[in-house]
Amino acid sequence: MKLAELTWPEVEALDRDKTVVLIPTGSLEQHGEHLPLFTDSILATAVAEATEQNLAASVLLTPTLWLGASGHHLAFAGTLSASFEAYIGALQSVVSSLAKARFRKFFVVNGHGGNSEPNGVALRQLKEANPELMLGHLGYFAPLEAMTQTLLEGRLKGIRHACEAEVSLMMHVAPHLVRTDKLRNDGLIPDPAIAGMIHLFDEMTERGSYGDAPCATAEKGKVLFDTAVAALTENLQTLSEGYALLERE
Amino acid sequence: MKLAELTWPEVEALDRDKTVVLIPTGSLEQHGEHLPLFTDSILATAVAEATEQNLAASVLLTPTLWLGASGHHLAFAGTLSASFEAYIGALQSVVSSLAKARFRKFFVVNGHGGNSEPNGVALRQLKEANPELMLGHLGYFAPLEAMTQTLLEGRLKGIRHACEAEVSLMMHVAPHLVRTDKLRNDGLIPDPAIAGMIHLFDEMTERGSYGDAPCATAEKGKVLFDTAVAALTENLQTLSEGYALLERE
Amino acid sequence: MKLAELTWPEVEALDRDKTVVLIPTGSLEQHGEHLPLFTDSILATAVAEATEQNLAASVLLTPTLWLGASGHHLAFAGTLSASFEAYIGALQSVVSSLAKARFRKFFVVNGHGGNSEPNGVALRQLKEANPELMLGHLGYFAPLEAMTQTLLEGRLKGIRHACEAEVSLMMHVAPHLVRTDKLRNDGLIPDPAIAGMIHLFDEMTERGSYGDAPCATAEKGKVLFDTAVAALTENLQTLSEGYALLERE
Amino acid sequence: MKLAELTWPEVEALDRDKTVVLIPTGSLEQHGEHLPLFTDSILATAVAEATEQNLAASVLLTPTLWLGASGHHLAFAGTLSASFEAYIGALQSVVSSLAKARFRKFFVVNGHGGNSEPNGVALRQLKEANPELMLGHLGYFAPLEAMTQTLLEGRLKGIRHACEAEVSLMMHVAPHLVRTDKLRNDGLIPDPAIAGMIHLFDEMTERGSYGDAPCATAEKGKVLFDTAVAALTENLQTLSEGYALLERE
Amino acid sequence: MKLAELTWPEVEALDRDKTVVLIPTGSLEQHGEHLPLFTDSILATAVAEATEQNLAASVLLTPTLWLGASGHHLAFAGTLSASFEAYIGALQSVVSSLAKARFRKFFVVNGHGGNSEPNGVALRQLKEANPELMLGHLGYFAPLEAMTQTLLEGRLKGIRHACEAEVSLMMHVAPHLVRTDKLRNDGLIPDPAIAGMIHLFDEMTERGSYGDAPCATAEKGKVLFDTAVAALTENLQTLSEGYALLERE
Amino acid sequence: MKLAELTWPEVEALDRDKTVVLIPTGSLEQHGEHLPLFTDSILATAVAEATEQNLAASVLLTPTLWLGASGHHLAFAGTLSASFEAYIGALQSVVSSLAKARFRKFFVVNGHGGNSEPNGVALRQLKEANPELMLGHLGYFAPLEAMTQTLLEGRLKGIRHACEAEVSLMMHVAPHLVRTDKLRNDGLIPDPAIAGMIHLFDEMTERGSYGDAPCATAEKGKVLFDTAVAALTENLQTLSEGYALLERE
Repeated sequence: MKLAELTWPEVEALDRDKTVVLIPTGSLEQHGEHLPLFTDSILATAVAEATEQNLAASVLLTPTLWLGASGHHLAFAGTLSASFEAYIGALQSVVSSLAKARFRKFFVVNGHGGNSEPNGVALRQLKEANPELMLGHLGYFAPLEAMTQTLLEGRLKGIRHACEAEVSLMMHVAPHLVRTDKLRNDGLIPDPAIAGMIHLFDEMTERGSYGDAPCATAEKGKVLFDTAVAALTENLQTLSEGYALLERE
Repeated sequence: MKLAELTWPEVEALDRDKTVVLIPTGSLEQHGEHLPLFTDSILATAVAEATEQNLAASVLLTPTLWLGASGHHLAFAGTLSASFEAYIGALQSVVSSLAKARFRKFFVVNGHGGNSEPNGVALRQLKEANPELMLGHLGYFAPLEAMTQTLLEGRLKGIRHACEAEVSLMMHVAPHLVRTDKLRNDGLIPDPAIAGMIHLFDEMTERGSYGDAPCATAEKGKVLFDTAVAALTENLQTLSEGYALLERE
Repeated sequence: MKLAELTWPEVEALDRDKTVVLIPTGSLEQHGEHLPLFTDSILATAVAEATEQNLAASVLLTPTLWLGASGHHLAFAGTLSASFEAYIGALQSVVSSLAKARFRKFFVVNGHGGNSEPNGVALRQLKEANPELMLGHLGYFAPLEAMTQTLLEGRLKGIRHACEAEVSLMMHVAPHLVRTDKLRNDGLIPDPAIAGMIHLFDEMTERGSYGDAPCATAEKGKVLFDTAVAALTENLQTLSEGYALLERE
Repeated sequence: MKLAELTWPEVEALDRDKTVVLIPTGSLEQHGEHLPLFTDSILATAVAEATEQNLAASVLLTPTLWLGASGHHLAFAGTLSASFEAYIGALQSVVSSLAKARFRKFFVVNGHGGNSEPNGVALRQLKEANPELMLGHLGYFAPLEAMTQTLLEGRLKGIRHACEAEVSLMMHVAPHLVRTDKLRNDGLIPDPAIAGMIHLFDEMTERGSYGDAPCATAEKGKVLFDTAVAALTENLQTLSEGYALLERE
Repeated sequence: MKLAELTWPEVEALDRDKTVVLIPTGSLEQHGEHLPLFTDSILATAVAEATEQNLAASVLLTPTLWLGASGHHLAFAGTLSASFEAYIGALQSVVSSLAKARFRKFFVVNGHGGNSEPNGVALRQLKEANPELMLGHLGYFAPLEAMTQTLLEGRLKGIRHACEAEVSLMMHVAPHLVRTDKLRNDGLIPDPAIAGMIHLFDEMTERGSYGDAPCATAEKGKVLFDTAVAALTENLQTLSEGYALLERE
Repeated sequence: MKLAELTWPEVEALDRDKTVVLIPTGSLEQHGEHLPLFTDSILATAVAEATEQNLAASVLLTPTLWLGASGHHLAFAGTLSASFEAYIGALQSVVSSLAKARFRKFFVVNGHGGNSEPNGVALRQLKEANPELMLGHLGYFAPLEAMTQTLLEGRLKGIRHACEAEVSLMMHVAPHLVRTDKLRNDGLIPDPAIAGMIHLFDEMTERGSYGDAPCATAEKGKVLFDTAVAALTENLQTLSEGYALLERE
């Protein structure tokens, strides 16, 4: 079910135990010269919508929180970044509003790595204040990391930024928005020499993108997309049905 | 131009003097038994997109800030409301991000009355800190108030909430989302006896809606919609071209 | 009753159903070369005090919150402006303090247009958290707009800023503070070409004032003042006695 | 000079080196059964106004920030208390507004003990961010503590709360507001057994007042008042003329 | 008992009526050329630990909140200063966490004058929201002020900053950290000409220290230290056993 | 160098290019029945101090920020948790204070998993506002994850909470604080069925601990500790010497 299209009596009628509220979080930020600013939002939304179609009776999908925490991309024109306070406040407002209507199960599917930490902070604050809520968040890309080791052809593995994997996904989901004539491989080592260093994208890239975009194909994109949808579908089904903690091994 | 679909070099290339950033603000809140929760966002977006098509060379349209300030509707399930801080922070973040990229002209087209005061506070704070910015905001419905006196057939005039006018607009813009079998006229006096009183919608209505929804028609909706688009188009054109203050009468 | 002059047992003894707490909000901001900085506070206070004299048994008048939201006047020396957070916090603190003592009816009479939006935000936040409170706010000038069309002689109608109407009111209420030798008519068109644009007063005026101040008279001021007091008196009486919502037409 | 009565060009003309901005801070809080809620604001204002009359050419007096930090009195009806954030924000807003107009010397004369700590925090934050400002704050009562040892007849010395000293001051400044028939001596030990404990006034008193109010006289009040005015006058004169730090003994 | 070394079941077993939580607050800020940055934290911790040894069965000692409010020392390298919000938030977090575990008695022993006002604000906010808590705070140095008049040999009395008293205390508590070859007497008058003025340490001193450090001895330090410990021990014992308010003289 | 023990001229003399400020973050939170509340702070401090000894000329070690983000442990008595705002504010205050003194290189070594997200948010905000700073953060435990697969004997691998690894580390670093008679293996599956779910420790454990504590030994602890110190030493040396971004593969 898509929350946006329902009326309030239709929402009121939903089963609070079974229903899982699914909240996509994205961004509007530079994705190099070849992908549109809305890439992360487009992908998180597409994964969420396909999952909702799989579980139409138990998933209540909200519109995408498309304004992400993207301050590290602001040197590139067009990027919009919420302050951390505004970002966290928006996500908490969505959950709190539906918790007031007695919904208890919420899952955030995230399309932008930079949202991951504020998603965690937002949901942990809510959980500490409302222990009865069941709250989770995960990047749609998390279940894909392992398979990129073999699926991707370029040197850089994983789902990074405007990279082979992300371009592939966009070729599958929204091919008309990929500037195929602009695909480029920076040839740079994308990470600082020390784990845990925080760098801006204008420090780490020449034109805003990572990795071997020219290797991207729609076929790889389909594999990645289907895997992401399958993983999220399974997670939400488990959450809808409930699971035990304090289980003995 | 739709910001979401551009790449950063395309945004970087835009003329900062001529370009007006257009930001729609909406809500996801109860609209009675006959309109979907996303009504305000749908209408603000539709007016903004039609205006952008009229002025494609000078208007840069952002995605809709759909999470509104809707606390007075929270008693009805499905309503999502941002805290005022989160709402103001989101709008300010959008403007600040593009101001960093040297854009100077911004206009907010609003689809939800409850956003009007926080829109004002948000933009005034920005203006006081950044006097060089040109900032404006207006409900798409503001230029329509006068014409509703004659256009509408029901007793309640104006663009209110899930009313004859709003249903007419939805019949024109998104007819598949109107529950025509649920159209109702509460027959209630919608306003408190004293100007300026603040009431929640569960205090003022029986089922969340105002006015004579059964009088609504797609034809009235088209008249209202075209008028709103024409007014916004004219405003943005003036803003793009610039205007003088300190003009003698 | 003036809250400031009472003792706590006298306040404790008041009827919580009947008593309406009246809170004037003003400003200390530039009013051109001819009116003192305290103009808005003087006028809001005078209207409130006259109203309290009309309804001494049911109105509990607080001192004036004289520090307004006046950031758009800060380019003129002497203007004091609260941050929006501080302004909203002060008004909410007043209401919350008396709500703790079980008062339920509050009305803000405002003397400065710039306070209107933060007054709305402040009271809406309180209402959403405390639905049992009855909260309202209105400019003392709101009921005067219509009559200025005929009463005023200058070209600019309405109650604007250091204009014919405001000078007239000050000539009636505090004539010793009007610099009659400095009255001036800028001859400027006071508003931007587009509805909803936010401008600072140093962008819109040459010396901080609007309109045809030389047309002002104490007689016009008396008419305006008496009308404002009558309207506020009627409102507060209705609020004290109570009114029904959900009334059928 | 009273800021409230000036126009902006008159403020603009002032000497920034010589002018000291004087800001009274008070409260509206319970003062037992015999003193009005506005006692602290009345006294701080009176001392400030008399000082301004002594130094009319160099002191710029703002209206009194009458909404104090009075949470420890909220159990008694009628008390209004700002949150600490709102209180600090208001005081900082006043200083910041005039600092923007290039005033550099500010002194807060305080009438309520509970404001002392937030006054300190507010001014220290401002000083750290704006080292060029000269900022000070002091209770009008601070220079009186020593003389109360001999001047007061009751057992409790010092300027406490609704006590012999405060009632005496009110008998001198605003005798019509003293309920002389309600003067009482609780006969309680006013302080907890351990220095530094924080208690609410409903924990520490039976009816909100401290000390031997029946011993109060207008004559004692005049002595206290004149001493307070003389001390503040001397301080402000020194601040206006300037003083050296880093002076050798 | 030292909280840091306990396990949670050991804390859970404690008597909530008898146990006083003792929280030392210090700083890491410049102390002239002769004392280490941690001086205030070292001294507050030492006094607190000695007191805890005296009252091991009833005092629950937390680690020292060593990050103080030291903005007035930031011009000297190495100083760390919490924002007031962060400082207040940290102290309130400690109290709130243990209040959730049903502890009711808290005492803050402070080693840095600049923490005194924010300690007061922090605890007053907590007390107003949680009247059942017993909360106190005091500088370890407060009970020493009187004795410094005779004990100290230099001209400057009291416990000031990197002065004769503080150096003496450090010679007793942590002699290896005193740079005895750098002891100096600025010979400056340490205070501004007007009570209540707020100055930065780089405005008031030449090298960050006050007073006659060369007069310091470990013997004086021991006298001061033992007095501080005795006073705090007595206070905590009283707080543990409980005391009556509303006592008749 | 230990910042706490230095004087300000000694800090002032340090080389700003070479010096890396090392900030340990820990917690004071329940660690089951067998480990003390301070476990995370003890371990982060020990790793940091050993690293500082390895790189005494280039590392400037601050005291440990021991008050962590531990809200998910608050159901167990003795746990202290900072609010996220206070936690983030404290860490940002430390960095900002030293950045004012022109230090540019900062690394946070973290001892508590719950601090990781707020550490990220805190440093990212600082980086976006101060691009010239070099900021990093990492758990001391991050470089140990791989080796636990073979080193640990119990079924649960990794560095979790009061587990085989953490007990081993404490046996090596602070054996006197390990309650060896209380070591227990809950035998529970420690993680929820879905990745990304947020649970409180009282939902996931019976007595607050995870994993096979009885398998812990001081020998394993030494291996883990030495590895952590070696990894951190290498990182800080690289940061001190500097590294290039935008390096070609």
